[in-house]
Amino acid sequence: MIQVVAGIDIGGTNTVFGLTDREGTIHATGNLNTANYSDGEVFIQDLAKEISKNLKPEFQLVGIGIGAPNANHHEGTMTNPPNLKMKGVIPFVKRFQEIFSVPTVLTNDANAAAIGEMIFGGAKGLKDFIMVTLGTGVGSGFVANGELIYGHDSFAGELGHTIIIPNGRPCGCGRKGCLETYTSASGIAKTFTELTEKQTGENLENITSYDVLLEAEKGNPIAIETFDYTAKILGLALSNAVCITSPSHIFLFGGPVKAEHFLLNPLQKYFEDYMLFVFSNNVKLQISELMDKNAAILGAAALAWQKI
Amino acid sequence: MIQVVAGIDIGGTNTVFGLTDREGTIHATGNLNTANYSDGEVFIQDLAKEISKNLKPEFQLVGIGIGAPNANHHEGTMTNPPNLKMKGVIPFVKRFQEIFSVPTVLTNDANAAAIGEMIFGGAKGLKDFIMVTLGTGVGSGFVANGELIYGHDSFAGELGHTIIIPNGRPCGCGRKGCLETYTSASGIAKTFTELTEKQTGENLENITSYDVLLEAEKGNPIAIETFDYTAKILGLALSNAVCITSPSHIFLFGGPVKAEHFLLNPLQKYFEDYMLFVFSNNVKLQISELMDKNAAILGAAALAWQKI
Repeated sequence: MIQVVAGIDIGGTNTVFGLTDREGTIHATGNLNTANYSDGEVFIQDLAKEISKNLKPEFQLVGIGIGAPNANHHEGTMTNPPNLKMKGVIPFVKRFQEIFSVPTVLTNDANAAAIGEMIFGGAKGLKDFIMVTLGTGVGSGFVANGELIYGHDSFAGELGHTIIIPNGRPCGCGRKGCLETYTSASGIAKTFTELTEKQTGENLENITSYDVLLEAEKGNPIAIETFDYTAKILGLALSNAVCITSPSHIFLFGGPVKAEHFLLNPLQKYFEDYMLFVFSNNVKLQISELMDKNAAILGAAALAWQKI
Repeated sequence: MIQVVAGIDIGGTNTVFGLTDREGTIHATGNLNTANYSDGEVFIQDLAKEISKNLKPEFQLVGIGIGAPNANHHEGTMTNPPNLKMKGVIPFVKRFQEIFSVPTVLTNDANAAAIGEMIFGGAKGLKDFIMVTLGTGVGSGFVANGELIYGHDSFAGELGHTIIIPNGRPCGCGRKGCLETYTSASGIAKTFTELTEKQTGENLENITSYDVLLEAEKGNPIAIETFDYTAKILGLALSNAVCITSPSHIFLFGGPVKAEHFLLNPLQKYFEDYMLFVFSNNVKLQISELMDKNAAILGAAALAWQKI
């Protein structure tokens, strides 16, 4: 018998899961088209069926971990996720515990990524670190004293929504100047589009952060400037975060991190430029060790393994 | 026999201590003129003598807690405090444990204040809160999951040195735009001086934040504007901090907090204006319950009681 947990990542388009052992080996995977579902209960039942199908006799399911948007860790629920058709309060933890009779844990994607890094990645044995995910938005998970900071209502770790430029770019949250409006994948694309229009008069459309990386690699100075500007804002936000929790490491995850030369080199420089002297050269800024692995499944699986 | 701990607060001018029981009653106090000492060992020995003098037969000393500038909690040392003549690394914890053979704990003043609030003040039973001290500087202590966040090197909780206005006012730390350059007592005085010069041409000298409060009470619109501006900057910094640790409460301590009407009312407004919607009206901003008590001694004593 191999003991496994189901690590489930609920995304806007697709939901994926993997039966994962304690060492992080994924023995079986499956998926479901999230976009097809508007009823949470139907989704839960179909997902449970898919998981059951994969539970061959050699596997013993011992837990379930779920990473989901708008997740409430304390309540075990997902509430009105912005990019999903399912609405209302969906009681994932309660229902999966009823169906499978195993411990079930749920949290948001970035928190799951932090636990994934701690159990299966570069943060093994670390007590104080920050995980930052750069994607459509900017997520984060803060670990202090060896524990993830959930906060009193389980919504802690919203570094992406710290206001970094008061009265700056409008954010999806309804406020202005949040970190993620500048340093998410779409924020990077927006900076490039704005700078290009300003410097050449050209109106670009449907640019992605990957396009900006390709332009930078071609030597486009506006693309290089875009990453430099992104690095400057992210460096400030990260050095401010260091002042609060004093981590030994910050791990970066997500598409934009692939712009290693263009983003990470200036980021390292600005990070230290903005750093309070007591922390200088004392915080390691590095790429997540789960970058090329199935990080979403591993993060969710780690959540469950951590609880068991 | 009354079990007591010695709560010691090492300040730039004066060092005070109090023999404090588990309920926070201070049974005896003493002090030493810190400014007279340039040798750490001599200071430790004289302080130990003063404490011993107060240890009447009815007291049983069971611990020592120390709040000190530039304190390293992990190492138990104070290193090159900027406003003291004593230099180098002073091993308070090691020496007091040798002299009194009781558990001894040391941390910085704001962290001690946070623990004091948790043990003796308004944060009893709270697992997630932030303590902010407004004085010569701006200090802070963050509690998450019921534990103070020391960080990997014990220097966490430097909210006062988060950069809130890039390229803003020069700070004693060598950088620019730190929160404390705007919202400490001296930051408030500086804002008033600057605004007065700008609006009336008058050059004010040696203004304190208390003078600004007196002016505000007299109806001076520049003083009122000063507190409003301070509240706006502090409100932004606090709402950003909420994004990271999601506390249930924020406690404010220190002289400027006495400007209740002029500072706290606008602060409450800006704090909510800047707040991410998930946290709206969900974080209590309130005055420390240790404000009119011997907070420095109680904070240091609480440190020791927490360890025992």
